[in-house]
Amino acid sequence: MLPPGPAAWQHKWYEVIFEAETPAGKWFDVGLLVAIVLSILVVMLESVSSLNERFGPTFDAIEWVITLLFTLEFAARLACVARPPKYAFSFFGLVDLVSLLPSYLSLIVVGADSLLVIRTLRLLRVFRVLKLARHVSESRTLLLALRHTWPKITVFLLVIFCAILISGTVMYLIEGKQDSGFDNIPISVYWAIVTMTTVGYGDIAPKTDAGRFVAALIMLFGYAVIIVPTGIFSAEVVTSSQGKRKGCPSCGVDGLSPQANFCEHCGGRV
Amino acid sequence: MLPPGPAAWQHKWYEVIFEAETPAGKWFDVGLLVAIVLSILVVMLESVSSLNERFGPTFDAIEWVITLLFTLEFAARLACVARPPKYAFSFFGLVDLVSLLPSYLSLIVVGADSLLVIRTLRLLRVFRVLKLARHVSESRTLLLALRHTWPKITVFLLVIFCAILISGTVMYLIEGKQDSGFDNIPISVYWAIVTMTTVGYGDIAPKTDAGRFVAALIMLFGYAVIIVPTGIFSAEVVTSSQGKRKGCPSCGVDGLSPQANFCEHCGGRV
Amino acid sequence: MLPPGPAAWQHKWYEVIFEAETPAGKWFDVGLLVAIVLSILVVMLESVSSLNERFGPTFDAIEWVITLLFTLEFAARLACVARPPKYAFSFFGLVDLVSLLPSYLSLIVVGADSLLVIRTLRLLRVFRVLKLARHVSESRTLLLALRHTWPKITVFLLVIFCAILISGTVMYLIEGKQDSGFDNIPISVYWAIVTMTTVGYGDIAPKTDAGRFVAALIMLFGYAVIIVPTGIFSAEVVTSSQGKRKGCPSCGVDGLSPQANFCEHCGGRV
Amino acid sequence: MLPPGPAAWQHKWYEVIFEAETPAGKWFDVGLLVAIVLSILVVMLESVSSLNERFGPTFDAIEWVITLLFTLEFAARLACVARPPKYAFSFFGLVDLVSLLPSYLSLIVVGADSLLVIRTLRLLRVFRVLKLARHVSESRTLLLALRHTWPKITVFLLVIFCAILISGTVMYLIEGKQDSGFDNIPISVYWAIVTMTTVGYGDIAPKTDAGRFVAALIMLFGYAVIIVPTGIFSAEVVTSSQGKRKGCPSCGVDGLSPQANFCEHCGGRV
Repeated sequence: MLPPGPAAWQHKWYEVIFEAETPAGKWFDVGLLVAIVLSILVVMLESVSSLNERFGPTFDAIEWVITLLFTLEFAARLACVARPPKYAFSFFGLVDLVSLLPSYLSLIVVGADSLLVIRTLRLLRVFRVLKLARHVSESRTLLLALRHTWPKITVFLLVIFCAILISGTVMYLIEGKQDSGFDNIPISVYWAIVTMTTVGYGDIAPKTDAGRFVAALIMLFGYAVIIVPTGIFSAEVVTSSQGKRKGCPSCGVDGLSPQANFCEHCGGRV
Repeated sequence: MLPPGPAAWQHKWYEVIFEAETPAGKWFDVGLLVAIVLSILVVMLESVSSLNERFGPTFDAIEWVITLLFTLEFAARLACVARPPKYAFSFFGLVDLVSLLPSYLSLIVVGADSLLVIRTLRLLRVFRVLKLARHVSESRTLLLALRHTWPKITVFLLVIFCAILISGTVMYLIEGKQDSGFDNIPISVYWAIVTMTTVGYGDIAPKTDAGRFVAALIMLFGYAVIIVPTGIFSAEVVTSSQGKRKGCPSCGVDGLSPQANFCEHCGGRV
Repeated sequence: MLPPGPAAWQHKWYEVIFEAETPAGKWFDVGLLVAIVLSILVVMLESVSSLNERFGPTFDAIEWVITLLFTLEFAARLACVARPPKYAFSFFGLVDLVSLLPSYLSLIVVGADSLLVIRTLRLLRVFRVLKLARHVSESRTLLLALRHTWPKITVFLLVIFCAILISGTVMYLIEGKQDSGFDNIPISVYWAIVTMTTVGYGDIAPKTDAGRFVAALIMLFGYAVIIVPTGIFSAEVVTSSQGKRKGCPSCGVDGLSPQANFCEHCGGRV
Repeated sequence: MLPPGPAAWQHKWYEVIFEAETPAGKWFDVGLLVAIVLSILVVMLESVSSLNERFGPTFDAIEWVITLLFTLEFAARLACVARPPKYAFSFFGLVDLVSLLPSYLSLIVVGADSLLVIRTLRLLRVFRVLKLARHVSESRTLLLALRHTWPKITVFLLVIFCAILISGTVMYLIEGKQDSGFDNIPISVYWAIVTMTTVGYGDIAPKTDAGRFVAALIMLFGYAVIIVPTGIFSAEVVTSSQGKRKGCPSCGVDGLSPQANFCEHCGGRV
C-alpha cells in the first residue's frame, strides 16, 4: 500500500498560498504584500514619539491584527506543505516564525526597549516580496553574471580594503594630534571609507595642509578606482546577454556562435 | 457630402505651431522656448527677496506679457487643431492650460503665498522643450533600452529598498539614544538613503563606534551595488545599438545578424 | 619669380619649437612643460599669505624670469612660423599672449587685486600640455565616441535639467519658511544640483519631514539616473572600438564588418 | 663539478613557505594571513586611548609574539631560497624586513611618537595577502585591460587635472574675500577635488551667489565627466573578454576572429 498522497484541499491551498498562477493565488500574494508593508509602516511610525503618543493604541491594535493574520498564514503554510518540518526550517519559514515571536514574547517578558531589537527582524519579511522576483526570469542572468565576475571583483575589493587601511593609518599619523576628529586608527579608517565611497559626511575632515594633500590623493584614487568593477560587470553582462557560446564536440574548439550549426574549424556538426 | 476638412489657414497655422519643418515653424519654436525660459527665470528671480523689492513691478509686467502671449498661443493651438477637445485634454494641452491659471486666479483670489504653489506648475512647461527631443531619433533607442532593462532593474531596486529599510532600522536601534539625529525610524531611513546614494550631507551622522562600524558596512554595500544597474543598462545599449536581430520565418531560429539575407541554419530567405 | 620660402633657420627652429620628433624638439617641450608647471606653482603659493610674507620677493623674481622666457618663446614662435598673424590669432597664440599681459600690465597699472583676475588666465597655458595628447592617437577615438553620443546625452541632460529646476522649486515651497537655507528658488536649485550630483555638502539640508521625504525621492532619482549616460557612452566606445563599419558601394547596405572584402548582400566588392 | 643544488629540506620548506599547492603550504599561508590580520588589529586598537589604558600590556605581548614569529618566518624564507640576497631586496622581502624593524628599534631608541610612523609600515604586509590573488588567473585579464586603457585614461585625467586647477583658482577669486574657507589657491584646489569627486565634505562651501553658480557648473561638469573613463574601461574589458584577436601572417590584416583558421581576406592559413 502506498503512503497517502496530499489531500485535495492541501493541493488547492498549496496552489493559492505558494503559487501565483491562479487568480486566487495572485490575490493572496497581493494581500500578503499589503499586510507586510502595513506592518513595516506601523513599526516605523511607532518609533516617531509624537505619533506614538497620539495613535499608540491604534498602532498596537493594527499590530495585533497583523500578527494574528501572519500566525494563521504560517499555520496554513505548515498544513498544506508535504513535509511541514522542512518548510519550518527553510529560510522563509524561519523568517516567518521569527517575525511572529516578538509580539507574543511582549506578553510574557516586560521591557519594550530590549524587545524592539527583535521586533525589527520582522522587516526581513520584506524579502518575501522577492518571491515575485522569482517569476522575473531575467534575475537568473543577473545572478549568473554576478557569480562569474565575483573572483575578479574580490581581487579588486582586496586592493580597496588595503588602500582604506593604509589611508586611514596615514591620516591618523598626520591629523591625529590636530583635534580634527582623527582620534584613533579605527575612526580614521571609518573616515577613509566615508571618503573612498564618496559619501563625505564632513563630521571628520582634515584641517592641516599635509592632511588635505593626502586626502586629495585618496579621493582621486577612489574616483579612478570605481570604474574598474563597473567595467568588469558591464562586460560580463554584455557577454552573457549575447547567449551561451557553444563548444565543438569534434575538435574541442570553444566560443562558437550560439546560432552555429557547424563548427567553423573542422566542419563537424555542433 | 463629406464633413468640411480643415481650412487653408488652419493647415498653415498647424504647420507653424505644431511642426518645425518650415522656417516659420522653426522660428515659432525658438521664440516659444525663449518665452518659457524667460518666464521660469522671472519666477526664480521673484523668489529672491532683495531682487523682488527692487524689480517687483518689472517682474509682474514681464509675467503678464508672457501670460498673454501664452494665452494667445493656447487659443491658436485650439483653433488650428482638427479636434480641439482632444488637444485640450492631451498631456501638453493640460500643462498649457494649468500654466495659465495661476496668473488669472491671482486677480480673483487674494493670497500670493498659496498661489505660488500653483505658479510653479508653469515650470512643467519646460518639458515642452522636449518636443525638440522627438526629432532626435536616437532617444527612441534609449527608451527601448530602458524598457528592456526595467524588469531587471526593478528586482535590483527592490533589493536596494529592503537594504535601505533594514539599514535605517538597525541604525535607529544603535544610535537612537545617542542624540546624534537618529530620532526615529523614518529619519534613520532618510539617513540610509542619503548614505546609500553617496550624497552624505552630514547633518545626521553616527557617533558611536558600533554605529560607525555598521555605517561603514552600509557604505561599502552601496558602493559595491551601484555597478549592477550600470552594467545591465550598458549591456542592453550595446546589444540594441548593434541593430535589431532578426528571426527566420522558415525554421524559427532567433538572433540572426541584422544584415543577414539568408538564415544561417536552414538557408531560407529572411 | 616665386615668393621666398622659409629660411633654413626658420625651418630648423620650427622643428624644435612646434614639433616633437627630433631630440631637441622633445627637450624643448619638456622644458616648456616644467616652466608652465613652475609658473602655476608660484601663482598658487603666492596666494598663501604665510608663504607670501616670507618668500614674496623670491616668488616675484621667479615670475619675472618665467615671464621673460615665455616672451622670448612667443617671439621665437612668431619668427619661425610661415604666417605670424595667423598663429597670433590661433587659440594657443592668444593664450600665449594673454598669459604674458598681466605681468607687464602690473608695471603700469597699480592694484594687485584686479590684476590677479587676469593673472590666473595663465593657468590656461596648462592646456598646451595637451599638445602631447595629440600624439596619443587614441584620443581621437574618444572624441569620436563623445561626438556620436552627444545627441543622446543632450536629451538626457535636458531631462536632468528639468528635474533639477522642478526639485529646487518644490523644495523651496516646502522648506522656504523653515530657516533651513532654502531662502529662494536659485539657492534651492543650487541645493538640487548639489544633491543630484551626490556631492552633498550639507550646508543646506532639509529639516522638515516633508522636505526630507521629497529630498529622498530626488536622491533616489539621481542615483537611478546616472546609469543612463554611462550606458550610452560605454556602448558607443564598444561599437567604435570594434572598428569602423563599412557601407557597400553597390547596393548601399550599411554596417558591414570592418574586415569584409565582399558585401554579404549583393556580393559586390567593398 | 656542478655547484651543489638545494638540499632536500630546502626544497621541502620552499614548497611549504612559498607555494600553496600542498596541504602544508596552504595551512602556512592561512596561518600567516591570520597573524598579519591580528598584528594590524593590535596596531589599530592600540591607537584607541581607552583600550590602550586597559589592555596596553596585553597588546605589547601580542605584538612581541607576532614580531618573533615574523622574524622566524623571515629567517626561514632566507634559508630555503636559492639566492637569499635576491629575495631580501625583492619587494616582498623589503616589506618583510621593514615591518620587523620598528619593534626592534623601539628597544634602542626611546620615543614612541616618532616610531609610530615606522610601525604603520607593517600594514603594507597586508599586500602579501595578494599572493592569493596571483592564483586567481582572472586578475591578469584585468591588468591587461587597465594597461590598454591607460593612455586614453591619462588624456582624460589631464583634462580633469586642468579643470580642477582652473576651478580652484576661479573659486579663490570669487570667494577668497568672503571668509568662507577659500583662503588661498591650494585650499581652493582641495575644495575643487572634494567637489569633482562628489565627496563633498561641506567644511568649505561657497557662500556668495556667484560662487554657488560656478560651483554648480563645476559639479555638473564633474558629473558628466565620470562617464568617460567608465565607458573606456568597460569597452576594453568587453573586447578583451571576447578573446585575443589575431593578425594574418600572409597579408598582415588585423582583427581576425579568435576562432578563425583562415584569413577572410587572402585565404592564407592563420
